[in-house]
Amino acid sequence: MFITFEGIDGSGKSTQIKLLARYLEKRGKRVILKREPGGTETGEKIRKLLLKEEMTPKAELFLFLASRNLLVMEIKRYLSEGYVVLLDRYTDSSVAYQGFGRNLGKEIVEKLNDFATDSLVPDLTFYIDVDVETALNRKGELNRFEKREFLERVREGYLVLAKEHPERIVVLDGKRSIEEIHRDVVREVERRWKLDV
Amino acid sequence: MFITFEGIDGSGKSTQIKLLARYLEKRGKRVILKREPGGTETGEKIRKLLLKEEMTPKAELFLFLASRNLLVMEIKRYLSEGYVVLLDRYTDSSVAYQGFGRNLGKEIVEKLNDFATDSLVPDLTFYIDVDVETALNRKGELNRFEKREFLERVREGYLVLAKEHPERIVVLDGKRSIEEIHRDVVREVERRWKLDV
Repeated sequence: MFITFEGIDGSGKSTQIKLLARYLEKRGKRVILKREPGGTETGEKIRKLLLKEEMTPKAELFLFLASRNLLVMEIKRYLSEGYVVLLDRYTDSSVAYQGFGRNLGKEIVEKLNDFATDSLVPDLTFYIDVDVETALNRKGELNRFEKREFLERVREGYLVLAKEHPERIVVLDGKRSIEEIHRDVVREVERRWKLDV
Repeated sequence: MFITFEGIDGSGKSTQIKLLARYLEKRGKRVILKREPGGTETGEKIRKLLLKEEMTPKAELFLFLASRNLLVMEIKRYLSEGYVVLLDRYTDSSVAYQGFGRNLGKEIVEKLNDFATDSLVPDLTFYIDVDVETALNRKGELNRFEKREFLERVREGYLVLAKEHPERIVVLDGKRSIEEIHRDVVREVERRWKLDV
């Protein structure tokens, strides 16, 4: 079971992924929760560069892909050992942020994702959709990934992906309460895997 | 004038690039000498990761490409201002080291190079060819890019590239003296650009 959470910062995805992890652990599952960029020792160093340095869109994309490739090696090992892997951001983030947000284009980013991940696609992706206004209001300080028009393009990217992959990507309305969203997440996971509840 | 130097470590390319820089400066040219990975502030941080961390071949390739994209932006600016740009390693290194050495394949690395450089190809490339034995004897301590069979594949990659691009890549026999090689480098540069000597 490989599940990713996607959405712009302030959408509530990090809260939801933790709630799902706790839920699955209570059901007796062994759960690994990781984030991107980062999630590995070298990946966390790459994450620091991404957050601190000014750089070009392509350099940014390549750093995400480097971090992702390292993480994919670990994820594959965890999956083969029977863990549930929950990942806070994955390939869809690159399509949305670099492909749409930074205007590098959807197709090239998808090809690079495929190469970087050795074609490892999540079984299920929760995209938590909020409008940019709401997301910005929830966040205090803004970083360089959080300019308004940029985030509008990112959101558009996510919605395009969700429309294209309706079996994999479940869109959740992020304006609702944490509890309501969590209930939908759990319902979807149970529907797909028929957990012994 | 955008000239790159290529070869395995111990081939003498760093010595030759400095000699050419000095020669051109004496002829009144404004010269910029850079190295890969690195050459920019963020690029040097990426270089540190590449030299210190254990990582996958693909992650390694992506980090080189990130560093390269940042450097290409600077190179383009220098070229537009009339500088001669000399670069110690560039796209051919990725084809030789990651494509051949790490077995990622020539074509994919070439495509990624093209994307990372916005198709910026050097006017001239000097590949200094030495056999692996000679190169290893010249070097003291070995780093992770310097295992014998790996370097044999890297050298093979360089020779394939040189055969494929005979107009761009000039192969120099690196077993000769520093002075002899330098004389060939200068002769080739003068032949192409008819410098006022």
